[in-house]
Amino acid sequence: MKKNTKQSVKQAKEISNLKFSTKRVTVAKLEKILYKPHKVLDHGFIRVIDYMGDDSSIVQAARVSYGKGTKKLNQDKSLINYLLSHKHSTPFEMNEIKFHIKLPIFVARQWIRHRTANVNEYSARYSILDEEFYIPKIDDVKPQSQQNNQGRSGEIDKNLGKHYLSLMRENAKINFSSYHHLLNLDEDGEILDEKRSGIARELARMVLPLNSYTQWYWKIDLHNLMHFLALRFDPHAQYEIRVYADVMIEILKKWVPLTYDAFVKNRLSSLTLSADAIEYIKQKLNRKRASDSSLSKRELQTLKEVFDL
Amino acid sequence: MKKNTKQSVKQAKEISNLKFSTKRVTVAKLEKILYKPHKVLDHGFIRVIDYMGDDSSIVQAARVSYGKGTKKLNQDKSLINYLLSHKHSTPFEMNEIKFHIKLPIFVARQWIRHRTANVNEYSARYSILDEEFYIPKIDDVKPQSQQNNQGRSGEIDKNLGKHYLSLMRENAKINFSSYHHLLNLDEDGEILDEKRSGIARELARMVLPLNSYTQWYWKIDLHNLMHFLALRFDPHAQYEIRVYADVMIEILKKWVPLTYDAFVKNRLSSLTLSADAIEYIKQKLNRKRASDSSLSKRELQTLKEVFDL
Amino acid sequence: MKKNTKQSVKQAKEISNLKFSTKRVTVAKLEKILYKPHKVLDHGFIRVIDYMGDDSSIVQAARVSYGKGTKKLNQDKSLINYLLSHKHSTPFEMNEIKFHIKLPIFVARQWIRHRTANVNEYSARYSILDEEFYIPKIDDVKPQSQQNNQGRSGEIDKNLGKHYLSLMRENAKINFSSYHHLLNLDEDGEILDEKRSGIARELARMVLPLNSYTQWYWKIDLHNLMHFLALRFDPHAQYEIRVYADVMIEILKKWVPLTYDAFVKNRLSSLTLSADAIEYIKQKLNRKRASDSSLSKRELQTLKEVFDL
Amino acid sequence: MKKNTKQSVKQAKEISNLKFSTKRVTVAKLEKILYKPHKVLDHGFIRVIDYMGDDSSIVQAARVSYGKGTKKLNQDKSLINYLLSHKHSTPFEMNEIKFHIKLPIFVARQWIRHRTANVNEYSARYSILDEEFYIPKIDDVKPQSQQNNQGRSGEIDKNLGKHYLSLMRENAKINFSSYHHLLNLDEDGEILDEKRSGIARELARMVLPLNSYTQWYWKIDLHNLMHFLALRFDPHAQYEIRVYADVMIEILKKWVPLTYDAFVKNRLSSLTLSADAIEYIKQKLNRKRASDSSLSKRELQTLKEVFDL
Repeated sequence: MKKNTKQSVKQAKEISNLKFSTKRVTVAKLEKILYKPHKVLDHGFIRVIDYMGDDSSIVQAARVSYGKGTKKLNQDKSLINYLLSHKHSTPFEMNEIKFHIKLPIFVARQWIRHRTANVNEYSARYSILDEEFYIPKIDDVKPQSQQNNQGRSGEIDKNLGKHYLSLMRENAKINFSSYHHLLNLDEDGEILDEKRSGIARELARMVLPLNSYTQWYWKIDLHNLMHFLALRFDPHAQYEIRVYADVMIEILKKWVPLTYDAFVKNRLSSLTLSADAIEYIKQKLNRKRASDSSLSKRELQTLKEVFDL
Repeated sequence: MKKNTKQSVKQAKEISNLKFSTKRVTVAKLEKILYKPHKVLDHGFIRVIDYMGDDSSIVQAARVSYGKGTKKLNQDKSLINYLLSHKHSTPFEMNEIKFHIKLPIFVARQWIRHRTANVNEYSARYSILDEEFYIPKIDDVKPQSQQNNQGRSGEIDKNLGKHYLSLMRENAKINFSSYHHLLNLDEDGEILDEKRSGIARELARMVLPLNSYTQWYWKIDLHNLMHFLALRFDPHAQYEIRVYADVMIEILKKWVPLTYDAFVKNRLSSLTLSADAIEYIKQKLNRKRASDSSLSKRELQTLKEVFDL
Repeated sequence: MKKNTKQSVKQAKEISNLKFSTKRVTVAKLEKILYKPHKVLDHGFIRVIDYMGDDSSIVQAARVSYGKGTKKLNQDKSLINYLLSHKHSTPFEMNEIKFHIKLPIFVARQWIRHRTANVNEYSARYSILDEEFYIPKIDDVKPQSQQNNQGRSGEIDKNLGKHYLSLMRENAKINFSSYHHLLNLDEDGEILDEKRSGIARELARMVLPLNSYTQWYWKIDLHNLMHFLALRFDPHAQYEIRVYADVMIEILKKWVPLTYDAFVKNRLSSLTLSADAIEYIKQKLNRKRASDSSLSKRELQTLKEVFDL
Repeated sequence: MKKNTKQSVKQAKEISNLKFSTKRVTVAKLEKILYKPHKVLDHGFIRVIDYMGDDSSIVQAARVSYGKGTKKLNQDKSLINYLLSHKHSTPFEMNEIKFHIKLPIFVARQWIRHRTANVNEYSARYSILDEEFYIPKIDDVKPQSQQNNQGRSGEIDKNLGKHYLSLMRENAKINFSSYHHLLNLDEDGEILDEKRSGIARELARMVLPLNSYTQWYWKIDLHNLMHFLALRFDPHAQYEIRVYADVMIEILKKWVPLTYDAFVKNRLSSLTLSADAIEYIKQKLNRKRASDSSLSKRELQTLKEVFDL
């Protein structure tokens, strides 16, 4: 176990035993997993560090009410569903969640494009990065997709796959070896060679590969979290970021179960029909000969799959 | 007491007796005032509804550390001071606070210009506004400032002042009377005249004056809260928004005392010198004849006041 | 004609005759209407002041290309359609447009809730507002809607309607009279009564009604403009803001015709089906007995209307 | 020259000969350099692609005026200086500029932290990256700074420096070789080995080093550009991002010369004094014994340097 990691695990244990008294809205199911790391990929994790609000806070904000907001569970459920399906986003912005996340740099680069969030990243100008890098599982190594210009699909010969994985591993090891040589320091900060001087961390880091792990604190409101999840849970998103979205959706379910239901129904499992698609479906429903000429191939295929046509 | 208000006070009391157990970072001094209204102006208030983080959370985020962040109080204090004075804003974004605020509409119109916050406002399309409007205290009624194109200063004859206040009051009463007549409803939603039909709330509201009270939930991170306070605590800000900033600065002090100290020192009581001002002060310090020709009148006056020249 | 307005019309004419040479992407149809006011409501307007980019700029950004971006018209059209329907928002953020808008304050208060835009509003702390206020046309005066808690619908007796309009007019006149009395200035800034002192503009303005006109410069990128238009063109939006959206959609058509087409097809005239609605339509399409039990009344009604069921 | 680059240079030339007629505000000095690459680092560049507004647009927005905004040059200059020194940021948000930038990935990772900008980055999920990576000049290779935890300073033995540079070069070459092997494609997209299948681009890219070059379109308003420049022009910023800021400041000077002057005076060359520093300087100015006990070492040193004490 890495030196940094060992120390962290100790601290994390201490903090997860804390117990305070509060008047704030509290979610029992989320308290249970507070501070605990959920493993993602080979060395990554997600930990919930803090949160603000629950389902009732959304209702309360929507009603700008004095009290707890909640009337009856059923009314709340139906109001939340209405707000979410009609894109009334501001009440969902009233809840906030803070994560500690460890992730490969190439994933971090996609992630950071979501601008409506707060981030503090571990800085390789200040600190030496641990020698940790992402290597896919053999089943996740796939050729370039023929349909999707930005994705992967199909199978690869297992032996060839193993060869590729071992190449990735060697590549990263060489990089970290260069890194330590340039710093003239090992991972624990011990000087490698007394007779020479290393170079600045801000320079040395640039030989590291994009699959090196970094970590950050990431804080976001519930509306923007759902926007992030809708985009990153999507099959077009890269597998390596989707697995983080998967974990966060489970966390969402514990935190705000009514919102989670509305989100799954109206977002994750929804379908937006264009004007042309509406016309096509309308004709089909009314048993007319439906012309598909104005639909793109992609759109037509989606309709056929979804509606079993 | 207004019907809406009575009901609210009851709900607010219930909620302020709540007590939950949490592992989250908790601030005892803030818990004490949670949900309690701080009176502002004649009918306005500010209530803290929820919060996330304390001083140690800023340190924790800055270090992207696993545990509670805090080393020793003194180190934390000095790190917070460093972060704030060097404009490292992201660690302060990791704390969040949620307010319930009642304020005159003309104040709300200035306030909303701060875009990096979340807002849910009471909607006069959905609901009937209470007959509540802001009337200044006699001492706050002043003539247009001769120096400051956007401010007030000087004195006004007290009798004339009283006349103006009574005009404001009559003006607002006429407006609310028009409002109820257009709605054909009184403040409690009772129909005024069975024989005629009122018009929609979204239309009727437009006869109300800008000193009518509205209310909203307002949520903001600590960095942006300080930015808001620095601008609105300023003597150039309108008195009617400054009094809200005053209350929030007291809340800031309870919530994050180390940050509050750094904020007062490095922001509220700081002074930014332009290149020309630096040169001027430098010459003064070195007992040379300082030329003030490149300084604006305003800048020169500020320097003289601040440094007692 | 108001003094301020007269002067403005003169300035606006001067500027609309300007002619410069540029290497920047230019849109002939938009140049034709540059600086010209489009009338909205009784005293409002929208003027395009400046713009950046055209349809090809979106393509160029999406491809991060060196040249003009455009390949063939057909490819561009299809790429823009793909980007818009798949919520790739960043290429649309690369275009920007700047408006000068005059609008009633109650409309401005809804408008400003769109935070991702830049605004400079005419300040009633600095300047005296012209005596201009919005009075609806008789056909737009309607009772509170019975279905829509925030809207209007149905008819009102014409004589009663006229009575209401005259009440609104009187109400505003009284307010502007109070305003001038408090300032001790008339609309042109002439002193009313030499023997008394007026009060500061920042105070006097608060007696004005919410249907007073204000004006601002408003600058926004194309992605956020479409988001604004999709929300404000909606039948649930208040009529008085929808008419501004109407004008802006016509401007959009002149500016970026390919994007306009994609926007109408995939946003304005689109329909998002929830998981339950998908299931319902699927069963209908496959001639099974479709259960509508999990659909809300509202959702079911929408499906029936849209698909003619 | 790379195949992609050759094609680009041709396209860039074509576009830089364009000439259109416009009524929009135009800046002759900026037109001259439109589309032209300014070289930065060994393979990077900055090109201005488009812009909106000039100095007069800021004035126009501040006055919400109908015409060109400008009164007399001197009044404009003084208004711009006032706005900038008093943190009235909204008028500066009314100008916008769009860049095409090529930069190393580790620089891009710092850059992207500025969230109030629009970005379209070249995607290595879609396209194969050119084999281009940043290698510092020998004089820029320095040891870790002893004072500044995140910087570099001091000298390194030239031979050792050369050794480090050659290590960086080898490291990157190995990475690009791994990259092409994993893709089973060379830089021009030609298949390397017909007998095996490569893996998806989104996977292969993760073996590339952080000094690989990427490129993006970056669009930002003038207020946020100045905020970016103030932070990145700072001596604490990493050299490799500062050189981009240098080029952009020269562009700023051509674009909005009055704003540039005010920016240099009130931001770049300004100094913010804390409450304690004000007190210290005040005592010095009034020839009292100034106590420096409440100043941090760092702050005291800054004062001594700036004021020649």
